[in-house]
Amino acid sequence: MNEVFSNYVLRPALPTDVPQIVNLMRDMAEFEKLLEQFKATDELVHASLFAPNPTAHALVITTKDQPDQLVAYIFWFHNYSTFRAKRGLYLEDIYIAPEHRGQGLGSFALKHLAKQAVELDCARFEWVVLDWNKNAIDFYEHHGATILPEWRIVRLENDALLKLAQS
Amino acid sequence: MNEVFSNYVLRPALPTDVPQIVNLMRDMAEFEKLLEQFKATDELVHASLFAPNPTAHALVITTKDQPDQLVAYIFWFHNYSTFRAKRGLYLEDIYIAPEHRGQGLGSFALKHLAKQAVELDCARFEWVVLDWNKNAIDFYEHHGATILPEWRIVRLENDALLKLAQS
Repeated sequence: MNEVFSNYVLRPALPTDVPQIVNLMRDMAEFEKLLEQFKATDELVHASLFAPNPTAHALVITTKDQPDQLVAYIFWFHNYSTFRAKRGLYLEDIYIAPEHRGQGLGSFALKHLAKQAVELDCARFEWVVLDWNKNAIDFYEHHGATILPEWRIVRLENDALLKLAQS
Repeated sequence: MNEVFSNYVLRPALPTDVPQIVNLMRDMAEFEKLLEQFKATDELVHASLFAPNPTAHALVITTKDQPDQLVAYIFWFHNYSTFRAKRGLYLEDIYIAPEHRGQGLGSFALKHLAKQAVELDCARFEWVVLDWNKNAIDFYEHHGATILPEWRIVRLENDALLKLAQS
Protein backbone atom coordinates (compact mmCIF):
# COMPACT_ATOMS: atom_id res chain seq x y z
CA MET A 1 0.00 0.00 0.00
CA ASN A 2 2.94 2.38 0.65
CA GLU A 3 4.27 4.11 -2.42
CA VAL A 4 7.49 6.07 -2.71
CA PHE A 5 7.98 9.14 -4.90
CA SER A 6 11.23 11.10 -4.87
CA ASN A 7 11.84 11.99 -1.22
CA TYR A 8 8.23 11.27 -0.20
CA VAL A 9 6.19 8.29 1.01
CA LEU A 10 2.41 7.85 0.59
CA ARG A 11 0.77 5.48 3.07
CA PRO A 12 -2.64 4.79 4.68
CA ALA A 13 -3.45 7.10 7.60
CA LEU A 14 -2.89 5.75 11.12
CA PRO A 15 -4.85 6.68 14.26
CA THR A 16 -1.81 8.64 15.48
CA ASP A 17 -2.00 10.86 12.35
CA VAL A 18 -5.44 12.24 13.25
CA PRO A 19 -4.38 15.44 15.09
CA GLN A 20 -2.08 16.43 12.21
CA ILE A 21 -4.78 15.60 9.63
CA VAL A 22 -7.23 17.89 11.43
CA ASN A 23 -4.61 20.66 11.53
CA LEU A 24 -4.03 20.33 7.78
CA MET A 25 -7.81 20.27 7.21
CA ARG A 26 -8.12 23.53 9.13
CA ASP A 27 -5.31 25.06 7.01
CA MET A 28 -7.25 24.04 3.91
CA ALA A 29 -10.51 25.52 5.21
CA GLU A 30 -8.66 28.75 5.95
CA PHE A 31 -7.10 28.78 2.47
CA GLU A 32 -10.55 28.26 0.90
CA LYS A 33 -12.03 30.96 3.18
CA LEU A 34 -14.49 28.34 4.49
CA LEU A 35 -13.42 28.29 8.16
CA GLU A 36 -17.00 29.06 9.26
CA GLN A 37 -18.10 25.72 7.74
CA PHE A 38 -15.27 23.80 9.40
CA LYS A 39 -16.57 21.45 12.10
CA ALA A 40 -14.01 18.61 12.04
CA THR A 41 -12.53 17.49 15.36
CA ASP A 42 -10.01 14.79 16.26
CA GLU A 43 -12.84 12.66 17.69
CA LEU A 44 -15.05 12.92 14.59
CA VAL A 45 -12.18 12.23 12.16
CA HIS A 46 -10.98 9.28 14.23
CA ALA A 47 -14.48 7.79 14.22
CA SER A 48 -14.86 8.37 10.47
CA LEU A 49 -11.65 6.52 9.62
CA PHE A 50 -11.22 3.88 12.32
CA ALA A 51 -14.70 2.80 13.44
CA PRO A 52 -15.75 -0.78 12.52
CA ASN A 53 -17.51 0.61 9.43
CA PRO A 54 -15.34 3.52 8.25
CA THR A 55 -17.23 6.26 6.42
CA ALA A 56 -14.13 7.54 4.61
CA HIS A 57 -10.61 6.41 3.76
CA ALA A 58 -7.49 8.51 4.27
CA LEU A 59 -3.98 8.45 2.87
CA VAL A 60 -1.13 10.65 4.02
CA ILE A 61 2.20 11.73 2.55
CA THR A 62 5.34 12.26 4.62
CA THR A 63 8.98 12.77 3.73
CA LYS A 64 11.20 9.68 3.92
CA ASP A 65 13.20 11.28 6.72
CA GLN A 66 10.24 12.15 8.94
CA PRO A 67 7.64 9.38 8.60
CA ASP A 68 5.49 10.87 11.39
CA GLN A 69 5.31 14.41 9.98
CA LEU A 70 2.45 14.79 7.49
CA VAL A 71 2.98 17.01 4.47
CA ALA A 72 -0.31 16.07 2.74
CA TYR A 73 -3.55 14.20 3.30
CA ILE A 74 -6.08 12.60 0.94
CA PHE A 75 -9.68 11.61 1.80
CA TRP A 76 -11.74 9.42 -0.49
CA PHE A 77 -14.87 7.28 -0.37
CA HIS A 78 -16.87 5.09 -2.75
CA ASN A 79 -19.66 6.73 -4.69
CA TYR A 80 -21.94 4.78 -7.03
CA SER A 81 -23.21 5.04 -10.60
CA THR A 82 -26.58 3.47 -11.38
CA PHE A 83 -25.93 3.54 -15.13
CA ARG A 84 -22.72 1.58 -14.62
CA ALA A 85 -24.23 -0.33 -11.65
CA LYS A 86 -20.84 -0.13 -9.99
CA ARG A 87 -19.17 1.88 -7.30
CA GLY A 88 -16.66 4.60 -8.15
CA LEU A 89 -13.79 6.22 -6.31
CA TYR A 90 -14.59 9.76 -5.18
CA LEU A 91 -11.73 12.00 -4.10
CA GLU A 92 -13.19 14.23 -1.40
CA ASP A 93 -10.07 16.17 -0.45
CA ILE A 94 -6.43 16.46 -1.26
CA TYR A 95 -4.30 19.00 0.56
CA ILE A 96 -0.56 19.51 0.22
CA ALA A 97 1.20 21.80 2.70
CA PRO A 98 2.38 24.98 0.86
CA GLU A 99 6.11 24.29 1.37
CA HIS A 100 5.80 20.93 -0.44
CA ARG A 101 4.00 22.12 -3.54
CA GLY A 102 5.46 22.29 -7.04
CA GLN A 103 7.30 18.99 -6.69
CA GLY A 104 4.84 16.67 -8.39
CA LEU A 105 2.97 15.43 -5.32
CA GLY A 106 -0.40 16.27 -6.90
CA SER A 107 0.32 14.12 -9.98
CA PHE A 108 1.74 11.39 -7.78
CA ALA A 109 -1.43 11.32 -5.66
CA LEU A 110 -3.78 11.36 -8.68
CA LYS A 111 -1.90 8.46 -10.29
CA HIS A 112 -1.97 6.50 -7.04
CA LEU A 113 -5.74 6.99 -6.74
CA ALA A 114 -6.30 6.10 -10.41
CA LYS A 115 -4.41 2.84 -9.84
CA GLN A 116 -6.47 2.16 -6.73
CA ALA A 117 -9.72 2.86 -8.64
CA VAL A 118 -8.71 0.31 -11.30
CA GLU A 119 -7.64 -2.26 -8.70
CA LEU A 120 -10.96 -1.88 -6.87
CA ASP A 121 -12.90 -2.28 -10.15
CA CYS A 122 -14.40 1.21 -9.90
CA ALA A 123 -16.42 2.50 -12.85
CA ARG A 124 -15.08 6.03 -12.39
CA PHE A 125 -12.66 8.24 -10.50
CA GLU A 126 -14.32 11.58 -9.74
CA TRP A 127 -13.91 14.76 -7.72
CA VAL A 128 -14.99 18.40 -7.96
CA VAL A 129 -13.25 21.66 -8.82
CA LEU A 130 -14.22 25.32 -8.53
CA ASP A 131 -15.04 26.68 -11.99
CA TRP A 132 -12.74 29.71 -11.52
CA ASN A 133 -9.73 27.59 -10.55
CA LYS A 134 -8.19 27.52 -14.03
CA ASN A 135 -4.84 26.16 -12.86
CA ALA A 136 -6.52 23.17 -11.24
CA ILE A 137 -8.76 22.56 -14.28
CA ASP A 138 -5.75 22.66 -16.64
CA PHE A 139 -3.89 20.29 -14.34
CA TYR A 140 -6.78 17.78 -14.22
CA GLU A 141 -7.37 17.93 -17.97
CA HIS A 142 -3.66 17.38 -18.53
CA HIS A 143 -4.12 14.10 -16.62
CA GLY A 144 -6.97 13.02 -18.92
CA ALA A 145 -9.93 14.11 -16.79
CA THR A 146 -13.11 15.62 -18.24
CA ILE A 147 -14.87 18.59 -16.62
CA LEU A 148 -18.65 18.06 -16.77
CA PRO A 149 -19.99 21.51 -17.64
CA GLU A 150 -23.73 21.00 -17.04
CA TRP A 151 -24.10 19.33 -13.65
CA ARG A 152 -24.63 21.41 -10.51
CA ILE A 153 -24.50 20.18 -6.92
CA VAL A 154 -27.76 20.59 -4.99
CA ARG A 155 -27.40 20.74 -1.20
CA LEU A 156 -29.71 20.63 1.79
CA GLU A 157 -28.12 21.05 5.20
CA ASN A 158 -28.61 22.52 8.66
CA ASP A 159 -31.97 24.27 9.16
CA ALA A 160 -33.16 23.70 5.58
CA LEU A 161 -32.61 19.94 5.93
CA LEU A 162 -34.38 19.80 9.30
CA LYS A 163 -37.26 21.84 7.93
CA LEU A 164 -37.84 19.47 4.98
CA ALA A 165 -37.44 16.40 7.24
CA GLN A 166 -40.11 17.74 9.59
CA SER A 167 -42.53 18.92 6.89
CA MET B 1 -39.32 1.79 6.84
CA ASN B 2 -42.46 1.66 4.62
CA GLU B 3 -44.18 4.99 4.15
CA VAL B 4 -47.60 5.58 2.63
CA PHE B 5 -48.56 8.60 0.53
CA SER B 6 -51.98 8.87 -1.07
CA ASN B 7 -52.41 5.69 -3.12
CA TYR B 8 -48.67 4.88 -3.04
CA VAL B 9 -46.25 2.96 -0.81
CA LEU B 10 -42.51 3.59 -0.53
CA ARG B 11 -40.44 0.64 0.71
CA PRO B 12 -36.87 -0.74 0.58
CA ALA B 13 -36.10 -2.62 -2.63
CA LEU B 14 -36.25 -6.43 -2.53
CA PRO B 15 -34.18 -8.86 -4.62
CA THR B 16 -37.32 -9.67 -6.64
CA ASP B 17 -37.59 -5.98 -7.66
CA VAL B 18 -34.26 -6.00 -9.52
CA PRO B 19 -35.49 -6.78 -13.07
CA GLN B 20 -38.10 -3.98 -12.84
CA ILE B 21 -35.51 -1.57 -11.39
CA VAL B 22 -33.19 -2.24 -14.32
CA ASN B 23 -36.06 -1.67 -16.77
CA LEU B 24 -36.87 1.68 -15.13
CA MET B 25 -33.16 2.59 -15.16
CA ARG B 26 -33.05 1.90 -18.90
CA ASP B 27 -36.14 4.10 -19.40
CA MET B 28 -34.34 6.87 -17.52
CA ALA B 29 -31.16 6.48 -19.58
CA GLU B 30 -33.26 6.68 -22.73
CA PHE B 31 -35.07 9.80 -21.45
CA GLU B 32 -31.70 11.44 -20.68
CA LYS B 33 -30.34 10.36 -24.07
CA LEU B 34 -27.54 8.51 -22.27
CA LEU B 35 -28.32 4.95 -23.40
CA GLU B 36 -24.79 4.54 -24.75
CA GLN B 37 -23.48 4.96 -21.18
CA PHE B 38 -25.95 2.47 -19.76
CA LYS B 39 -24.23 -0.70 -18.55
CA ALA B 40 -26.49 -1.87 -15.70
CA THR B 41 -27.60 -5.51 -15.67
CA ASP B 42 -29.75 -7.50 -13.26
CA GLU B 43 -26.63 -9.25 -11.96
CA LEU B 44 -24.69 -6.02 -11.31
CA VAL B 45 -27.64 -4.29 -9.63
CA HIS B 46 -28.37 -7.33 -7.49
CA ALA B 47 -24.75 -7.46 -6.34
CA SER B 48 -24.71 -3.71 -5.62
CA LEU B 49 -27.76 -3.87 -3.36
CA PHE B 50 -27.72 -7.31 -1.79
CA ALA B 51 -24.08 -8.36 -1.42
CA PRO B 52 -22.75 -8.59 2.17
CA ASN B 53 -21.38 -5.05 1.82
CA PRO B 54 -23.90 -3.20 -0.35
CA THR B 55 -22.43 -0.37 -2.43
CA ALA B 56 -25.77 1.44 -2.80
CA HIS B 57 -29.21 1.50 -1.20
CA ALA B 58 -32.48 1.39 -3.12
CA LEU B 59 -36.05 2.32 -2.34
CA VAL B 60 -39.03 1.67 -4.58
CA ILE B 61 -42.54 3.06 -4.85
CA THR B 62 -45.57 0.98 -5.83
CA THR B 63 -49.30 1.60 -5.72
CA LYS B 64 -51.17 0.18 -2.73
CA ASP B 65 -53.09 -2.14 -5.03
CA GLN B 66 -50.11 -3.62 -6.84
CA PRO B 67 -47.27 -3.93 -4.30
CA ASP B 68 -45.09 -5.83 -6.80
CA GLN B 69 -45.37 -3.33 -9.66
CA LEU B 70 -42.76 -0.58 -9.37
CA VAL B 71 -43.73 2.95 -10.39
CA ALA B 72 -40.50 4.59 -9.16
CA TYR B 73 -37.05 3.78 -7.83
CA ILE B 74 -34.53 5.72 -5.73
CA PHE B 75 -30.81 4.96 -5.35
CA TRP B 76 -28.71 6.59 -2.65
CA PHE B 77 -25.37 6.10 -0.91
CA HIS B 78 -23.35 7.80 1.80
CA ASN B 79 -20.89 10.45 0.74
CA TYR B 80 -18.58 12.23 3.20
CA SER B 81 -17.61 15.79 4.07
CA THR B 82 -14.16 16.34 5.56
CA PHE B 83 -15.09 19.82 6.82
CA ARG B 84 -18.03 18.36 8.71
CA ALA B 85 -16.11 15.11 9.38
CA LYS B 86 -19.38 13.25 8.87
CA ARG B 87 -21.06 11.23 6.20
CA GLY B 88 -23.89 12.67 4.13
CA LEU B 89 -26.76 11.18 2.18
CA TYR B 90 -26.25 11.40 -1.57
CA LEU B 91 -29.24 10.83 -3.85
CA GLU B 92 -27.85 9.19 -6.96
CA ASP B 93 -31.06 8.64 -8.87
CA ILE B 94 -34.75 9.11 -8.60
CA TYR B 95 -37.00 8.03 -11.45
CA ILE B 96 -40.78 8.12 -11.54
CA ALA B 97 -42.60 6.39 -14.43
CA PRO B 98 -44.22 9.03 -16.67
CA GLU B 99 -47.80 7.95 -15.93
CA HIS B 100 -47.29 8.55 -12.19
CA ARG B 101 -45.83 12.05 -12.38
CA GLY B 102 -47.55 15.24 -11.23
CA GLN B 103 -49.02 13.62 -8.14
CA GLY B 104 -46.48 14.69 -5.55
CA LEU B 105 -44.26 11.60 -5.56
CA GLY B 106 -41.13 13.72 -6.06
CA SER B 107 -41.84 15.81 -2.95
CA PHE B 108 -42.81 12.69 -1.03
CA ALA B 109 -39.51 11.01 -1.93
CA LEU B 110 -37.40 14.10 -1.10
CA LYS B 111 -39.08 14.44 2.30
CA HIS B 112 -38.57 10.74 3.02
CA LEU B 113 -34.86 11.03 2.19
CA ALA B 114 -34.48 14.22 4.24
CA LYS B 115 -35.98 12.41 7.24
CA GLN B 116 -33.63 9.48 6.66
CA ALA B 117 -30.63 11.84 6.43
CA VAL B 118 -31.55 13.38 9.78
CA GLU B 119 -32.16 9.98 11.41
CA LEU B 120 -28.77 8.73 10.16
CA ASP B 121 -27.04 11.87 11.52
CA CYS B 122 -25.90 12.95 8.05
CA ALA B 123 -24.24 16.36 7.71
CA ARG B 124 -25.91 16.97 4.35
CA PHE B 125 -28.39 15.67 1.81
CA GLU B 126 -27.04 16.23 -1.71
CA TRP B 127 -27.62 15.37 -5.33
CA VAL B 128 -26.96 16.92 -8.75
CA VAL B 129 -29.07 18.62 -11.39
CA LEU B 130 -28.47 19.67 -15.00
CA ASP B 131 -28.05 23.45 -15.15
CA TRP B 132 -30.60 23.79 -17.98
CA ASN B 133 -33.31 21.85 -16.11
CA LYS B 134 -35.07 24.94 -14.77
CA ASN B 135 -38.18 23.03 -13.63
CA ALA B 136 -36.09 20.71 -11.50
CA ILE B 137 -34.02 23.57 -10.06
CA ASP B 138 -37.17 25.51 -9.12
CA PHE B 139 -38.62 22.39 -7.54
CA TYR B 140 -35.50 21.74 -5.45
CA GLU B 141 -35.18 25.36 -4.36
CA HIS B 142 -38.86 25.31 -3.38
CA HIS B 143 -37.91 22.48 -0.99
CA GLY B 144 -35.15 24.57 0.60
CA ALA B 145 -32.17 23.25 -1.35
CA THR B 146 -29.27 25.43 -2.51
CA ILE B 147 -27.72 25.07 -5.98
CA LEU B 148 -23.92 25.43 -5.70
CA PRO B 149 -23.01 27.54 -8.74
CA GLU B 150 -19.20 27.20 -8.74
CA TRP B 151 -18.43 23.50 -8.36
CA ARG B 152 -17.89 21.29 -11.41
CA ILE B 153 -17.62 17.51 -11.47
CA VAL B 154 -14.29 16.16 -12.74
CA ARG B 155 -14.38 12.64 -14.16
CA LEU B 156 -11.87 10.03 -15.24
CA GLU B 157 -13.23 6.80 -16.68
CA ASN B 158 -12.65 4.09 -19.28
CA ASP B 159 -9.45 4.56 -21.33
CA ALA B 160 -8.47 7.85 -19.65
CA LEU B 161 -8.62 6.21 -16.22
CA LEU B 162 -6.61 3.19 -17.36
CA LYS B 163 -4.06 5.45 -19.01
CA LEU B 164 -3.45 7.48 -15.83
CA ALA B 165 -3.36 4.32 -13.69
CA GLN B 166 -0.69 2.82 -15.94
CA SER B 167 1.40 5.98 -16.30
